[in-house]
Amino acid sequence: MTDRDAGAEPPSDAPTGPLSGVTIIDMTRVLAGPYCTLVLRDLGARVIKVEPPGGDDARGFGPFIEDRSAYFLSLNRGKESIALDLKQAADRRVFDALLDRADVLVENYRAGTLEKLGYDWTALSSRWPRLVYAAVSGFGHSGPYAGRAAYDMVVQGMGGIMSVTGWPGGEPTRVGTSVGDITAGLFTAIGICASLKDRERTGRGAKVDVGMLDCQIAILENAIARFAVSGQAPGPLGARHPSITPFESYRTADGHVIVAAGNDKLFAKLAGALGRPEWTEEARFRDNQARTTHVDALKAEMEAVLTGESTEHWLAVLERAGVPCGPINDVAQALADPQVRARNMVVEMLDPGLAEPLIMAGNPIKSSAYPDPTTRPAAPALDAHRAALLAELGLEDG
Amino acid sequence: MTDRDAGAEPPSDAPTGPLSGVTIIDMTRVLAGPYCTLVLRDLGARVIKVEPPGGDDARGFGPFIEDRSAYFLSLNRGKESIALDLKQAADRRVFDALLDRADVLVENYRAGTLEKLGYDWTALSSRWPRLVYAAVSGFGHSGPYAGRAAYDMVVQGMGGIMSVTGWPGGEPTRVGTSVGDITAGLFTAIGICASLKDRERTGRGAKVDVGMLDCQIAILENAIARFAVSGQAPGPLGARHPSITPFESYRTADGHVIVAAGNDKLFAKLAGALGRPEWTEEARFRDNQARTTHVDALKAEMEAVLTGESTEHWLAVLERAGVPCGPINDVAQALADPQVRARNMVVEMLDPGLAEPLIMAGNPIKSSAYPDPTTRPAAPALDAHRAALLAELGLEDG
Repeated sequence: MTDRDAGAEPPSDAPTGPLSGVTIIDMTRVLAGPYCTLVLRDLGARVIKVEPPGGDDARGFGPFIEDRSAYFLSLNRGKESIALDLKQAADRRVFDALLDRADVLVENYRAGTLEKLGYDWTALSSRWPRLVYAAVSGFGHSGPYAGRAAYDMVVQGMGGIMSVTGWPGGEPTRVGTSVGDITAGLFTAIGICASLKDRERTGRGAKVDVGMLDCQIAILENAIARFAVSGQAPGPLGARHPSITPFESYRTADGHVIVAAGNDKLFAKLAGALGRPEWTEEARFRDNQARTTHVDALKAEMEAVLTGESTEHWLAVLERAGVPCGPINDVAQALADPQVRARNMVVEMLDPGLAEPLIMAGNPIKSSAYPDPTTRPAAPALDAHRAALLAELGLEDG
Repeated sequence: MTDRDAGAEPPSDAPTGPLSGVTIIDMTRVLAGPYCTLVLRDLGARVIKVEPPGGDDARGFGPFIEDRSAYFLSLNRGKESIALDLKQAADRRVFDALLDRADVLVENYRAGTLEKLGYDWTALSSRWPRLVYAAVSGFGHSGPYAGRAAYDMVVQGMGGIMSVTGWPGGEPTRVGTSVGDITAGLFTAIGICASLKDRERTGRGAKVDVGMLDCQIAILENAIARFAVSGQAPGPLGARHPSITPFESYRTADGHVIVAAGNDKLFAKLAGALGRPEWTEEARFRDNQARTTHVDALKAEMEAVLTGESTEHWLAVLERAGVPCGPINDVAQALADPQVRARNMVVEMLDPGLAEPLIMAGNPIKSSAYPDPTTRPAAPALDAHRAALLAELGLEDG
């Protein structure tokens, strides 16, 4: 595929978010790291992508639009790119000059990769004491698996989330989006922002070390509590919540409806809306714990009513009654939802090299202090910002 | 259930994380908000939970340990609690005095709830201009659904993640952990930290408004790119990645193994390790795009080999060959994993009211500047810190 020249102009200086003025040197590839720096870019940071001469692997991942990876474009909008080979002295000089001006260095290589190049934390922090260095890797920088590579699929399997996703007795099921990478990217972004805040107090940076597997443990949530209390590893539960009832997907005449009546008040509203107010009098449906014990019986009773009408009918009835509910949307429906549109969660990347703007997810962190633009600048072609960056650094191209 | 007296001593003043010195007034309940402030607490912030007189709903959610909610305890370790009825003048004076000393106010009520009590953003920011106010709600504070309640299950259904999770032709499948709440909690934590950092520059706080549905769109990742390019809404794919191959769960003689060979180099290693080096010569397996086109054929060839030996055998063989791989662990296995233990991702909450320490997930953000303790302080009984807080504020109990 060809990398057409795209968006080589430097960003403007006006603050565009709470991280305006923060410069991030971004050595990340594929998903976890680029997702982290995408979030930080949306918050106003300047992100300079330092790619190996062959470019970020994700430039080769589908789906493709006009020979470019839509996957890469979505993750790297508004970033700058320079290709550097850190085994070459001339390129190391450029890299060092970038670090001279940086607040943050992020990378998601395997543990030990940066050390081998001479950029271990001891070296980094002694030369750039204010630098926040964030490393996001499969297993983190310590422990017996530190040197191993991991991808989303591996940590979804090892971290337990696959064991609670899917249907009882069914095949192992992956979460349909790369939560292994994404949660690691989010935790890394939190670590970076908190360390930047702390630097204002201490005058010093810090190393932030995030492992994707660790993040999977951190999001297991009540599955850990259930195991801690019962000693039994919980299994998958299809489309229902383990300890809140009714909180599930239910069949209707023409599809499904999600009903989430998480407390007694909402359950009473639900019973009324379905024309079965007597449910609230029954011992087996008395409180959330009783309803969870009798989850199958309650589901059968509810579906006996719900399958009499369409999803659309029930959504209207339940919304009017104030019962939290919703449809199961596919991606097209989700992106077309009036609320999603009203919240500017579908933005367009403007790239002169593309015939049409490419849609992508917006920024879910809405701040009263900054605008939330409906468009985003282009993702960079490999090395697109070399000349501008070298000029800014006062260096000549070697 | 009874709320025994637990952990009423105030926290020490020594910095324990990058957010040491930050005081958070936490009006959140159940999961999304408490998860956000749990992450911030682990980073050193002081979190004062302002509960309604009846307490956080989650105190009533199972599983229970010695009559207390293990779910609540896991999410609220190390926080302080005071019960306030904001419809009472005396309690409003306490709340105002807390805000006088606060850096952050977080709540996850339905949009409009705080406004009705007189604590809208205009009022908050004019009285406390340095306050960061974060609101995490089902749909955010704007748009047609702003006033509606939502729970995890609703936004998982509406936001599209259920449409890409599960098996082709199968029943709709929920992600087995509450990613609707958790990702909203993480984005809110990022918004808070970034706004605190920005306050150092501007001297002013900001309102951060995060909607759970928005966050579901933000994590759809390549499902959006696939829809944008093809115009077709993607469906569920079981246990495989949509555009990277081989990247899936495969059958072995006694179970499954995850293999994630995301590029040509790794695929060559895999082919060698399985004794089928000739795969790399085949046109249909030539590159990632070709392998994704022929994903079923490749899976059949791989399983023909893999089902000849056990999962344990293949993990050893693949690890030796440097191919990213892993088992599918249940929660018990995941928590016992040597890497998870070495990374201190299973910590113990010490509570004098419990016969045994309760295990819970640790902090995945490892910082070079702060220790990562193996224990956590107790979660508070409802209103446990009233006397200490009133004394600190110089107020008398009304």
